[in-house]
Amino acid sequence: MTASYPVLVRYAETDQMGVVHHAAYVVWLEEARTRLLADAGLPYHELEQKGLYFPVVELFLRYRRPLRYGETAQVEVRVAEVKSRRVAFAYRVLRPDGEPAALGRTVHVPEDGRGRAVRLPSSVFEKLRALAEA
Amino acid sequence: MTASYPVLVRYAETDQMGVVHHAAYVVWLEEARTRLLADAGLPYHELEQKGLYFPVVELFLRYRRPLRYGETAQVEVRVAEVKSRRVAFAYRVLRPDGEPAALGRTVHVPEDGRGRAVRLPSSVFEKLRALAEA
Amino acid sequence: MTASYPVLVRYAETDQMGVVHHAAYVVWLEEARTRLLADAGLPYHELEQKGLYFPVVELFLRYRRPLRYGETAQVEVRVAEVKSRRVAFAYRVLRPDGEPAALGRTVHVPEDGRGRAVRLPSSVFEKLRALAEA
Amino acid sequence: MTASYPVLVRYAETDQMGVVHHAAYVVWLEEARTRLLADAGLPYHELEQKGLYFPVVELFLRYRRPLRYGETAQVEVRVAEVKSRRVAFAYRVLRPDGEPAALGRTVHVPEDGRGRAVRLPSSVFEKLRALAEA
Repeated sequence: MTASYPVLVRYAETDQMGVVHHAAYVVWLEEARTRLLADAGLPYHELEQKGLYFPVVELFLRYRRPLRYGETAQVEVRVAEVKSRRVAFAYRVLRPDGEPAALGRTVHVPEDGRGRAVRLPSSVFEKLRALAEA
Repeated sequence: MTASYPVLVRYAETDQMGVVHHAAYVVWLEEARTRLLADAGLPYHELEQKGLYFPVVELFLRYRRPLRYGETAQVEVRVAEVKSRRVAFAYRVLRPDGEPAALGRTVHVPEDGRGRAVRLPSSVFEKLRALAEA
Repeated sequence: MTASYPVLVRYAETDQMGVVHHAAYVVWLEEARTRLLADAGLPYHELEQKGLYFPVVELFLRYRRPLRYGETAQVEVRVAEVKSRRVAFAYRVLRPDGEPAALGRTVHVPEDGRGRAVRLPSSVFEKLRALAEA
Repeated sequence: MTASYPVLVRYAETDQMGVVHHAAYVVWLEEARTRLLADAGLPYHELEQKGLYFPVVELFLRYRRPLRYGETAQVEVRVAEVKSRRVAFAYRVLRPDGEPAALGRTVHVPEDGRGRAVRLPSSVFEKLRALAEA
């Protein structure tokens, strides 16, 4: 299943080239990823309260076309890979004209909040698997 | 005593007007304030480890002239007020030509990390007083 | 007229105190302010294309209570003052429980994009006045 | 040649996990990259004034260990690839203990500021080549 969330470009996210700065996309991916988790019944702040963290261990972004202030982007996100010790998400950031502004991928390793890798609890594993296969 | 710290403008801190975005200054004030504390023997991360936090309760900034990418600003900071339950800092952000880019002030209320106001420990109070009067 | 816009707290906007960092609010005020302008028929990117800029010359924020990741804030904004060479906006950032997280005010001086102050064009002036008095 | 630049962790760059948020590294890479260019006689703001831009078209980061507020990181950067229409930089972000916090790579396509790809001017090409081979 691919979910899609709108992101209104913030003025602060532009740079002196007149387009959205590339670091802003990183935050957008995170917003889309955690909205997907929340919509799937796994609000990230509740996972953290239970001691389950998903720090980013890999980040990849390919920038294709610029986005500008005044535009609303759509950030598509899907679960790309689920293993007991590794979860990956894939993203497409779309411009208002439907063209991709950027493609992305993040990889996460479940941790206990003290930096120790843990296995995904089975309930979380199953929900992520279901998302990946939906 | 007024301390002064250089800040190299980051490209990401510019916006599409071609100058530093006004929100970036807020982070610079914080950097200068906590460098001042560290230089005075009060590293903020150690205060936090001891359960003493200085959240910002008031922020004031007056912007006078722009700063641009490629420039190094100087952020001047001094302790403007010290009471047992309230500390204020005053700032001047200077451009390379010495002209003020911005003037600022922040007010902080000592807390215990759970949102409860506390009195400044006397050792911290004395050091801040000494800074204010130096 | 007071408009209100939701803001979903981003994980990147939190800091190690576990709450939204105070600089994030500055960006939220800007988002609310420019959404208000857009809803009033004055999209800020179109104003800029016509050579009219509203740089922030004063920023004031009073922080009352924290906001946390997983929460949606409401940012209320209204035009507080309209003169031919000066416009001010007032803000309230509300928590999900309706309590104010922060109160704010920004002052802007119309410019031509080269740093020269200009008078508001009468069409813009009238629309802002109407907003202020609605 | 590998250059190395210190970066003092800013409080605003932490998140509620208590470590530096992964998006902050993206800005650090940019700072190190443009400091390297400046030190090599190619200040990026002067390149832009001449109509030469290096937008990021690919970004890769692998996060290894966390960084914390109060620490100073070293960002190592080198020119990894120079072609007339493509330049790549490689990075290592080191913790105070010398351990890598992150490894990174960015790819850039020279543009004219209107989104049109251009060939690197030979003077710039030669300087970048010299950096890559030094």
